[in-house]
Order: sequence, then C-alpha cells, then structure tokens
Amino acid sequence: MLASQPFSRLLGAELTVLEAGRCELQLPITPELLQQHGFVHGGVVSYLADNSLTYAGGTMLQLRVVTSEFKLNYLRPAVGERLVARAAAVQAGKSQAVCRCDIYTVHQGEEKLCAIAQGTIVRLPDRPPGEGA
Amino acid sequence: MLASQPFSRLLGAELTVLEAGRCELQLPITPELLQQHGFVHGGVVSYLADNSLTYAGGTMLQLRVVTSEFKLNYLRPAVGERLVARAAAVQAGKSQAVCRCDIYTVHQGEEKLCAIAQGTIVRLPDRPPGEGA
Amino acid sequence: MLASQPFSRLLGAELTVLEAGRCELQLPITPELLQQHGFVHGGVVSYLADNSLTYAGGTMLQLRVVTSEFKLNYLRPAVGERLVARAAAVQAGKSQAVCRCDIYTVHQGEEKLCAIAQGTIVRLPDRPPGEGA
Amino acid sequence: MLASQPFSRLLGAELTVLEAGRCELQLPITPELLQQHGFVHGGVVSYLADNSLTYAGGTMLQLRVVTSEFKLNYLRPAVGERLVARAAAVQAGKSQAVCRCDIYTVHQGEEKLCAIAQGTIVRLPDRPPGEGA
Repeated sequence: MLASQPFSRLLGAELTVLEAGRCELQLPITPELLQQHGFVHGGVVSYLADNSLTYAGGTMLQLRVVTSEFKLNYLRPAVGERLVARAAAVQAGKSQAVCRCDIYTVHQGEEKLCAIAQGTIVRLPDRPPGEGA
Repeated sequence: MLASQPFSRLLGAELTVLEAGRCELQLPITPELLQQHGFVHGGVVSYLADNSLTYAGGTMLQLRVVTSEFKLNYLRPAVGERLVARAAAVQAGKSQAVCRCDIYTVHQGEEKLCAIAQGTIVRLPDRPPGEGA
Repeated sequence: MLASQPFSRLLGAELTVLEAGRCELQLPITPELLQQHGFVHGGVVSYLADNSLTYAGGTMLQLRVVTSEFKLNYLRPAVGERLVARAAAVQAGKSQAVCRCDIYTVHQGEEKLCAIAQGTIVRLPDRPPGEGA
Repeated sequence: MLASQPFSRLLGAELTVLEAGRCELQLPITPELLQQHGFVHGGVVSYLADNSLTYAGGTMLQLRVVTSEFKLNYLRPAVGERLVARAAAVQAGKSQAVCRCDIYTVHQGEEKLCAIAQGTIVRLPDRPPGEGA
C-alpha cells in the first residue's frame, strides 16, 4: 500500500502492521527528514500521524477512505534511529472511524513517546470524485 | 530560514512572506508529493500547516520556538500546480502564540481553500536542550 | 431553537444571529458559570464553541445535524458581563461543514477575544436513531 | 475541589478519583443537561472533557494550572443515567502536561464510550493574574 504513495516512498515509510482497527508504520530517520536543530521535522511526525490514522481507520471501513481531520500534540524532540507510529480505531461506524495514534522515537532500542494524535477517517462515496488513502 | 531545514528543502517549500504575526509558505506540487490517487498527500499539507504556524508564531515570540500542537481539517483534495499556506498569530503572550492557518491549492491561477489549521507555538527555554523552528 | 435545549436554558444562552453559514450566541455571565478563581468556567466556553459551531454548520446542511468534533484554544481568562460566540462555516458539502468560531468576553462594552475553535458538523441520516442540534 | 467551582455544582459533577496523573469525574444525567432530542448536550460532554483533563494534568504540575487547549471527538449520543470521564496524563514536564480523556455513558450498569479528548494543561506563573482550575 505505501509503495503506491510517492510521498511515502520519498520519506521511506514502512508499513509493519495492518490488521482490523490497527496499523503500525515505521520510518528510518535520515538526514533529509530533519529540521535546523537536528531533530526530525514536525512535518514528518504529522505525516506519520495522518497516514497511520488513515490506515487504522481504513481497515474498519469499506473501500476508499480519507482523513477528515486530526489533532497532534508533540511531546518531545524526535531523535534517534527510527520513528514508530501505532494507530488504533477507537470507534467505527458505517461512514467514519475515530482513531488515536502514538508516535515513538527509537534510540538504541529504547522507545520514547514523542507525539500523540487523534482524528477522524471518513469513507468516500462509492463513485468518488477523488482523494483517499 | 527554510534552507536550514533539510526536510523543507526535500519538499521544495518556499518562504514567501514573513512579518510580525504572519507567514506565507508556498510549495510547488511535484509527483513525489502525491498519494496513490494523484492528490497531494495529506502529510504534505500537514507539513505546511505545522511549518507556517510555527513561523507565524515565531515572529511574535523571542528566540527559538516550537509547535506544541495543532489541529488540521482537510476540506478538499489538493490538486493543481502549487500549495499556499497562510498563517497568522491570533494571540501572543510572552511564552506562547495561538495561530491559525489557511492552506490553498492553486490551479491555473485560481486559489481554492483545501485545509485549515489551528495550533499553539511555544517559546523554548533560553538555554534549551533541543528542538525548535 | 435554544429554547428547545434545556441545557442552553440552564446556562442562559441567547441566539442573536442565525443566517446562512453564520451564527452568534451570547451568554450573560452569572455567578453559577464561574470556576474557583472567579473566571467563567472553561466548560461554559466549550459549550458556546460546540453550540455556535453546530448552528453555523447546521445552516449549510439540510435537516438535522450534530457536532462531530471540535478543537478549542483558550486565549485568556473569561471575565466581564457577557460572552459572545461568533461562528462561521468555512466550507460546506452535502454531508458536512467545517466551521470556525471566535469567542469574546465583553467588559464595559469592550470585546476581547478569549477563545477560538474549529470543528466539523455532520448531517445526520434522514431516518435517524438520535442526537442532533 | 469541585465544590469550589460554581459551574461544577450547577451541573452536579462529582470527583470520584484523583491521583497522580489520573482523574475520574462522574455526572448524573438530569433533564436540564439535555438538548432538544433528549440526549445530553455536547456542551456537558465538553465540560467533562475540559475539567477531567485539567485535573489529571494538575496532579502532575505544581500549584495552579489551566487548560490551554483540547480537542474532542463525539462518538455516539450520550444517553443513560450517568456520564463518567476518565483522564490521564500522557506526558508531563515542568510547565505543561498532555492528557487524554475517555468519556462513557452508563446505562443500566453498562458503560459505552461516547467521546474522547486530548489536550494540554499548563502551569500558571507563580504570581498569577488569574484563571485556573
């Protein structure tokens, strides 16, 4: 699935878990993902939030889905070798799923929570004009 | 400023306006920024939200700042030649600024609002351990 | 409309503007709306955000609607004689509207912005099991 | 603590758990807390989110705190005899705590998740001009 997203390929994201209501994405930290202080750019973290929420919600809905909205709190600077985003659907109906996400940095094998997110994934109409993940 | 952020260079963002309480970022839409349906990936839009909020808030605070949190609503698929993010500080105190952001797609010269965001930018301690934008 | 909501009557809210895509609610500040420091309780402000967003979005959608989600930033302590919430639909489709809201305190005739919000209003199914505003 | 908040007394909230990083509030559902369709008004749910997040965060910070911002997703209509809000601090530093909250309806002894929230609690300056919970 990620291979079909040029932007996910550009960043180097890996889909490591995908099951009913649950998704895990991993992202090796490379120099081009940083900001000016040597930490992972917040936009990379928000990409992981967006995408993991979408996938977790998408497993609970049929066909094509899209992230409608999300909210993200950054907890600490993201440093280390890798980021791991774990998202889960908290509630799912026919047309939308509400999901949460925890994003960790992994440094020397130790995970630290660096951001949390909460958002809504919606099912697109059957004959859609566009968008989706 | 953007040139000091490897991730902003990777995406190709341009800082087109920066003044007290206000920031505009632009981003030419290139193939690697898309998702699987040919629209700009939501993570690109969230990068613009994060970064434009940070800069708008940063103009109102002293020294180094960081985005503490933000919330983003996607309004329509992002297609066209270019994205434009305009952020403004709604309120600023000594230690934090609350900002809003409108993100537009530009297609054949026409702007359409495709996402809106709201978030908090906080000033980092004077002798900081890290992070910032 | 507000008169049909027991909770809005309990708080004493007044619907002062309601037109396509726009709503204004006002709320006289009374002692029972305060918290322990003499300021209006955050829950009162969040009530105004929720309700004004719902009404602004509801004018753009047909039939019954409900607030799906919202995000609120408190900007300053709410003190004065009255609160005024002004909400507007930023974008509306067939099934949902995304709205923003500014909440002001009014003290001796002067308005000060004390909170801002952003949220999603969704249209309920035609034959609904419940809820709505 | 709740007894010192006139608005919490007006609504009838009860503080049932308060320990390091954790808070539970309960609220018996009474007719005046409803909206026009017979469900608990969203503003009551948002009050519970705001207050439980503040208390959970407040246990991790010193002195006086205030909710800076929060985001709330409504999951289902709130009906039943009672609402229960459980909040926990996910991360806490010296000046702020990021918390999550789950809000349940209780009907005939059965709990159902009806809303989830996420927000930031900040410590007020030592000699403050105001606000707090």
